[in-house]
Amino acid sequence: MGRTPPHPEVSQFDLQQVLEALVDPVRRSIVTQLDDAAEDLACGTFDIPVSKSTATHHFKVLREAGLIRQYYVGTSRMNALRRADMDKAFPGLLDALTTPQAKGAR
Amino acid sequence: MGRTPPHPEVSQFDLQQVLEALVDPVRRSIVTQLDDAAEDLACGTFDIPVSKSTATHHFKVLREAGLIRQYYVGTSRMNALRRADMDKAFPGLLDALTTPQAKGAR
Repeated sequence: MGRTPPHPEVSQFDLQQVLEALVDPVRRSIVTQLDDAAEDLACGTFDIPVSKSTATHHFKVLREAGLIRQYYVGTSRMNALRRADMDKAFPGLLDALTTPQAKGAR
Repeated sequence: MGRTPPHPEVSQFDLQQVLEALVDPVRRSIVTQLDDAAEDLACGTFDIPVSKSTATHHFKVLREAGLIRQYYVGTSRMNALRRADMDKAFPGLLDALTTPQAKGAR
C-alpha cells in the first residue's frame, strides 16, 4: 500500500501540534463535518471555502497531527476521524470541540 | 474600580479566540499552573520563561478570551481561572487541557 500516507502512532501525538491543527477554522470545520457525518468522507465532499490545493494542505496537517486517517478507495482519498486514538492521547479534547456549543461557534 | 481591566461576558466568548489563546504554550502553562494551584495567583508568581512585559501580554490575551479574571489586591494583579464560565461556553474544553495527559504534554 505505497499510496497510504504516513500516520503518527498515538504515542507520537503532540498536544502542541494537535492544537495548532485545530486552531485553524477550516481544519476545525473538516473535523466537525467528519463528526457530523459519522462516516468516512472523500476529500472532495467537504464543504470548505478553499482551493483544492489548500484543502490538501489542511488534510495533511490534520493527518500529521493524528486527527484524521487517510486512505484510498480507488482514486478517492478518504478521511476518517481518529476519535478513539485522540481520546486515548488527550481525553475529552475532541468531545469538547464537537459539542453543540463549539459547533455553533465554528 | 477603575483599575479592574475589562472582561468579556460568557455570551461573548468566542471559540476561535479561546483556541488562539490556548495554542500558545506559555499561555497554556499559565492556565495549567492556575489549575494546579487551585487558587488565584499573582502575576509575579508564575513559572514562565518570558520577560515581564511579554507575560503581561499573555495575561491580557487570556483575559480577553475569557480564560482568566484579573483583579487587584493592593499592588498585586491577581489571576483567577474562569473555569465555570468557560465550562458554560465550551463544556469540557478546559477539562481536556488539564488532564494528566495534556499536562504531561505541556
